[in-house]
Amino acid sequence: MTYSVRELAREIGVDILGNGDDEITRVADLEDSKKGSLSFAVSSQYLDKLKQTKATAVIIPEGLTSYCKTTALISNNPYLSFARAAKLLHPEDAFIAEIHPSAVIHDDCEIADNVYIGPNVVISAKCTIGKDSYIGPGTVITAPSFIGASSRLIARVSIVGPTLIGERVIIHPGAVIASDGFGLANNNGMWEKIPQLGRVILGDDVEIGANTTIDRGALKDTIIEQGAKLDNQIQIAHNVVIGAHTAIAGCTGIAGSTVIGKHCAIGAAAGIQGHIRIADGVQVSGMTAIRKSITKPGLYSSGTTAQDNKSWLRNAARFKDLDALFKRVNDIVKKLERIEKGK
Amino acid sequence: MTYSVRELAREIGVDILGNGDDEITRVADLEDSKKGSLSFAVSSQYLDKLKQTKATAVIIPEGLTSYCKTTALISNNPYLSFARAAKLLHPEDAFIAEIHPSAVIHDDCEIADNVYIGPNVVISAKCTIGKDSYIGPGTVITAPSFIGASSRLIARVSIVGPTLIGERVIIHPGAVIASDGFGLANNNGMWEKIPQLGRVILGDDVEIGANTTIDRGALKDTIIEQGAKLDNQIQIAHNVVIGAHTAIAGCTGIAGSTVIGKHCAIGAAAGIQGHIRIADGVQVSGMTAIRKSITKPGLYSSGTTAQDNKSWLRNAARFKDLDALFKRVNDIVKKLERIEKGK
Amino acid sequence: MTYSVRELAREIGVDILGNGDDEITRVADLEDSKKGSLSFAVSSQYLDKLKQTKATAVIIPEGLTSYCKTTALISNNPYLSFARAAKLLHPEDAFIAEIHPSAVIHDDCEIADNVYIGPNVVISAKCTIGKDSYIGPGTVITAPSFIGASSRLIARVSIVGPTLIGERVIIHPGAVIASDGFGLANNNGMWEKIPQLGRVILGDDVEIGANTTIDRGALKDTIIEQGAKLDNQIQIAHNVVIGAHTAIAGCTGIAGSTVIGKHCAIGAAAGIQGHIRIADGVQVSGMTAIRKSITKPGLYSSGTTAQDNKSWLRNAARFKDLDALFKRVNDIVKKLERIEKGK
Repeated sequence: MTYSVRELAREIGVDILGNGDDEITRVADLEDSKKGSLSFAVSSQYLDKLKQTKATAVIIPEGLTSYCKTTALISNNPYLSFARAAKLLHPEDAFIAEIHPSAVIHDDCEIADNVYIGPNVVISAKCTIGKDSYIGPGTVITAPSFIGASSRLIARVSIVGPTLIGERVIIHPGAVIASDGFGLANNNGMWEKIPQLGRVILGDDVEIGANTTIDRGALKDTIIEQGAKLDNQIQIAHNVVIGAHTAIAGCTGIAGSTVIGKHCAIGAAAGIQGHIRIADGVQVSGMTAIRKSITKPGLYSSGTTAQDNKSWLRNAARFKDLDALFKRVNDIVKKLERIEKGK
Repeated sequence: MTYSVRELAREIGVDILGNGDDEITRVADLEDSKKGSLSFAVSSQYLDKLKQTKATAVIIPEGLTSYCKTTALISNNPYLSFARAAKLLHPEDAFIAEIHPSAVIHDDCEIADNVYIGPNVVISAKCTIGKDSYIGPGTVITAPSFIGASSRLIARVSIVGPTLIGERVIIHPGAVIASDGFGLANNNGMWEKIPQLGRVILGDDVEIGANTTIDRGALKDTIIEQGAKLDNQIQIAHNVVIGAHTAIAGCTGIAGSTVIGKHCAIGAAAGIQGHIRIADGVQVSGMTAIRKSITKPGLYSSGTTAQDNKSWLRNAARFKDLDALFKRVNDIVKKLERIEKGK
Repeated sequence: MTYSVRELAREIGVDILGNGDDEITRVADLEDSKKGSLSFAVSSQYLDKLKQTKATAVIIPEGLTSYCKTTALISNNPYLSFARAAKLLHPEDAFIAEIHPSAVIHDDCEIADNVYIGPNVVISAKCTIGKDSYIGPGTVITAPSFIGASSRLIARVSIVGPTLIGERVIIHPGAVIASDGFGLANNNGMWEKIPQLGRVILGDDVEIGANTTIDRGALKDTIIEQGAKLDNQIQIAHNVVIGAHTAIAGCTGIAGSTVIGKHCAIGAAAGIQGHIRIADGVQVSGMTAIRKSITKPGLYSSGTTAQDNKSWLRNAARFKDLDALFKRVNDIVKKLERIEKGK
C-alpha cells in the first residue's frame, strides 16, 4: 500500500510538520528506515536514533519536534498512531471465502456468509460460525460452539468443550480451548475425575496466544471478558474470570476459580494462586508469585534477582534461617537496652 | 439424566435425610442451584451458601446437617460423592464406533472392536488400538505404540516415539508424547544430538493435560505410573518416573531422570531439578523450586511472596547481601559478649 | 545394526583396550547393558556401575581404565563418542520420499527431490521445501517460507508467518513458528493490535522442542542462530536473538527484543526480561529470573531453595521486612560504637 504523508496523517488523525506530499510505503524502526518508511519515537530515549533516521516521516510527541529532521507527525500517543498507520500500510491479506473440500463439517452446523474454512478442519454438530470468520487449517471443534463474526482461528486450534466466542476474536495456533479442568476427588489416595460441565466464554476482541490453554469451567464458566489479550503458553484453569481489557504476558499460569480484574497487566511467567481475587488495575511483574488476593491497584512483585552463582548459593542458604536472624536481632536489641540501662 | 434422590443416594452409597422422592436432573454449586439441582458442601466454610441454596438436595458431611434446610445426602467424603453423582447425572456422550474415511491408518495395525478413529487421524505401522478406545480428530501416531482399552485421545494428540498406554487413559489436545529428550553432547562448544531410544509408558487411569509434553527416554523409559494425573502444560523430561496416584498441577516442569514418588501432590508451576528423588507422599507448593532430593513426606515450599513493587525492590536488593548480614550479626553478638564481659 | 568393536572404534575415532572382535548391536547404560551392548562412563561417579556392568565394551576416559573389566574404548569426551556410536548403531529410520495424497500443497511452491510430505500437511503459496527434508503429518505452513535441505518437521508443526529455516533443522511436534508477537498499543485503557511484520529465521542445525513457540518479529526478525538448541515449551517473544550454539532447557521464557549471546546454557524454567543483552558464554540456573543485562560469562542464579512449608512461611514473611532489618542492624552497629566510645 502507498499513502502520501498527508493521507496517512488524515487517516490516523495527527498533524504534519513538514512535507505532506512524500510517499510512504512501509513502517520500520528508526534504524532500519529508508526512503518511503514511516517510523516513530515515543520519548527522549529515542533521540540518538531519531537524529540519524533515514525515514521519510516519523510519528513523535510534540516535545521531540526540535530534534526531528524529517517530516514529523505529531501525536500524543505515537505508539498507538504508529500501530494504526501500520495497519493501513500493511493490511492483513484478505481471505477468499471458501470451505475447503477436505474440511469435515457436521450437517447440523450454521456457517454464515463469507467464511473461510481451511483444509482438514473438523467441526462437529451444533456449531455456528459467524460471517467473515476465518477457521484456519487443522482446527478442530468437537463440541457445540458459537464463533462470532470476523473472528480468526489462525491454524490448528482445538475447541473441545462448549464455547462461546465473540466478534473479532483471534486465536493463535496450538491453543486449546475448553478442555477439561483439573478436577479430582480423592478416594483413599486414588484420584477420581470430576466431570467438567462448564463452558468457556471469550468476549469480543479477545486475543489468545499460541499454545495457550483455557479449561472449561467445572460447574460455572471460564470467562475471558472483552478486549482481554493473552500471550502464548498461558494456562487458565477452570472457573477463572479475566476482566475486560486485561493483558497477560506469556507463560503465566492462573489457577482455578481466581478472578482477575479489568485493565490489569500481568507480567510474563507469573503464577497466580487459585480462589483469589485481583482488583482492577493491578500490575504484576514477570515471574511473580501471587498467593493472596490483591485489593488495591498498583505494581506487585516477588522473587529475588539473579547474581553470580557462588554468591547466590551463600545467600539462598541463609534464607532458610531468615526468621531466626530476625529473632536474633530482636535479642540483640533487648540486650543493648539492658546494657544501656545498666550504665 | 433424571434420578430420584433415593436412586442417586443408593448409587453413590450415601444416606438420605429428607425427601427421597424428589427428582434430580443436574449438579450445580450452591449459589447456582435451583429446583432439580444437586449440590455439595464440604465444610463450615460453605455455611452461608448452604443456608441460602435452592438446590433440591445437598451432599454434606454429618456435621453440617443442622444447617441444611434441603434434603441432605450424608457422606464422609462429600466431594467424592458429588463427583460420582455428577458422573451419573452428566454421563459422557457415548461415541459411535467408526473409522472416519479421512483417517490414514497403516495396514500393519491392530484396531480392536468398538473403536472411534476421527477425521484426519494418522496411525503408522505396528500400532495397536484397544477396544472401546477413542482416537480424536487430528491425532497423529508415528511410532509403534500400544493403546489400551477404553482410552481416549481427545483431539490433536501427537505420539511420535514408541509408547505403551494402559487402559482408561485420557490424553487432552495438544499433548506430545515420546518426542525426543533434550540429549546433547558438547563438541568444542557445538552440540551433537544423542539419539533418544527409550519409550514412554503411561499406566492405567493416567490423565495427561492439554499441551503437556512427555519426552521418550534416552536409554531407559519415561514412566508415568498408574493413576497419576497430569494437568496442562507440564513438561516431563526423558527418563523421569512419576509414581502411581501422584497429581501434578499445570505448568510444572520435571527435569531429566528425576524419580517422583507415589501419592505426591505437586503444585502448579513448580520446577523440579533433574537426577533427584522425591519420596512418596511429598507435597510441593505452587511455584516452588526443588533443587535437591526430598526423603520425607510433607509439604515443601520456596520463593517469596508478592508485595508492592517499591518495597520489593528494596528487599530484593538486600537479598544479595544476606550472607554478609548474617556475618555482621555474628560480629555484633561477639562484640556484645566482649562488652558484657568488660563490665 | 551390528558393528565389531574395532569397526565402531574406527568410526568414532577412539582407541581400543581389549578385544576388537566382539560384536556390538546396541547402546545401553551400564546397569542395563548385556552381551552386545556398548555403554559409557564419564567420571569416577560411575565406578560402582562400571565394575558391575555386563556390557561388551564401555567408552571411558583414560583415567578409568584400571577400573574397567570389559573392553574399553578410550575417549577424552566419552559422552560425545557415545552419542556418535549411538547414531551408528541406531540410525534414524530412513524415510521413503513421498507426497501423501491427502497433503494440500499450493501450486506455487517448490518442492525439491527426495522429500517426504506426510498425510494432512498443508502448505500455502510461495514455500520452498529443500531436498531430503521431512514434513511430518499434520504440519501446517500458511505463509511464504523456506525450509532448507535435510530438515525435519516431526509432526503437527505450525509455521504461520514468513520463516527462513536452514539445513538439518529439527522441529518437534506442536511447535508454533512465526505467530504474531504480543504487540499492543494502549488507547485509553483498551488495547489495539500492532501488526507484526517481521520474520523468524532459524539457522542451520537448530533444534526446536515440542510445543515451543517462537513469535515472528514486530518490525525486525526473530533469529535463532545456527546450532542453537531449544527444548520443549520454550517461549521466544518477538525480535529476540538467540546466539549460535546456545542451548536452552525446557519451559524457559525470553521476553521481547532480548539478545542472548553465543554458547550460552540457559537452565530450565528460567525467565529472561525483555530488551536486555546476555553476553556470550553465560550460564543460567533453572528457575532463575534474569531482570538485567549480563555482561560477563559465568553461572547466574536467583530464587530460594525449598524447605518444609512451616519454616518457609516464617522466612518468606520476614523477606518483606528484609530492608528494614538491614537498617536496624546498621542502627545497632552505630549504637555499639557509641557504647564502646562511652566506656
